[in-house]
Amino acid sequence: MAQKQEMLNGVNVEGLFQTIEAIKEEPSIAKFNFRAKNEWIDGGENRTTVNDFYGAGKTHVRSKPFVFTKDEPPVLLGNDHGANPVEYALTALAGCVTTTLVYYASAKGVKINKVESTLEGDIDLRGLLNIDENVKVGYESIQIKFKIDSDASEETLQELVEIAKKHSPVANTISNPTPVIISISK
Amino acid sequence: MAQKQEMLNGVNVEGLFQTIEAIKEEPSIAKFNFRAKNEWIDGGENRTTVNDFYGAGKTHVRSKPFVFTKDEPPVLLGNDHGANPVEYALTALAGCVTTTLVYYASAKGVKINKVESTLEGDIDLRGLLNIDENVKVGYESIQIKFKIDSDASEETLQELVEIAKKHSPVANTISNPTPVIISISK
Repeated sequence: MAQKQEMLNGVNVEGLFQTIEAIKEEPSIAKFNFRAKNEWIDGGENRTTVNDFYGAGKTHVRSKPFVFTKDEPPVLLGNDHGANPVEYALTALAGCVTTTLVYYASAKGVKINKVESTLEGDIDLRGLLNIDENVKVGYESIQIKFKIDSDASEETLQELVEIAKKHSPVANTISNPTPVIISISK
Repeated sequence: MAQKQEMLNGVNVEGLFQTIEAIKEEPSIAKFNFRAKNEWIDGGENRTTVNDFYGAGKTHVRSKPFVFTKDEPPVLLGNDHGANPVEYALTALAGCVTTTLVYYASAKGVKINKVESTLEGDIDLRGLLNIDENVKVGYESIQIKFKIDSDASEETLQELVEIAKKHSPVANTISNPTPVIISISK
């Protein structure tokens, strides 16, 4: 019973507050390093493996790695063996904003029944293809529309969405400039 | 035989140049709109479906949708049912820079035998958890190290990596500020 009362929206709220307190005492445990390995297959197809990461003072290894195939659709000269990288970016963003929203709702005692969202992002491929230097290369902007089922007031839900935007790591990686440093190793 | 000669690194080079010429004649066909739908499951777990997108003047629908489960590892209060959103962001970035590199190599007539990369990104979770307002919320930076097997010179490969960084949509979505617009619909 005690265990059940600590959970809200599937989030261990007591564990969440304990984590926050532990970080306040020892900020270095908040430093995480996430990792991925990628292997080109052919044409627009490549495969990423996600397995270990560093955080809370140690390296964590999954029981088995997560593997993701990316490809391009035929109109972008691929074979459609997987979603393409810009669709993976939407996937990352959707997940991060949703989880941030649900964790904050849990910390605030707001019960959430359902969260759905649709995402859209516009890209003008003249940037990728170097046809026009004045065209932005990445997404021009990304829109997320949430539909949330909860007994909380509209005002509370609006506040949660704003908090999620402000504190989601992927949303901030995208909306703020984040250095991408590329090198060749032998 | 003609078909074979048009392909380099698995990329239809003639198709690539035809696409570029078609866009130069009619720039509107370069406008793409990518989409995703997300559904919260429980706690840190949610699921994204990628299926249709708009581009080259029409909507394209896959024969079956690509579905991605995201979750958090136990140290971040999840059940590890999937890679987490910031790992999906690395996956997106790895794929996009690799594909951009391979497509440009093909256009330039550079044969590539193998491309591998490792990615790392640092995040201080005090931003996510609202413990310190001065901490960056998203990735501080992301490092990509490429290992490329090709007969091309080091100089050519270095040039290709720089082109890939400059023209990869996901790398630019991350390294430049990209507006993320979030709203609630009923």
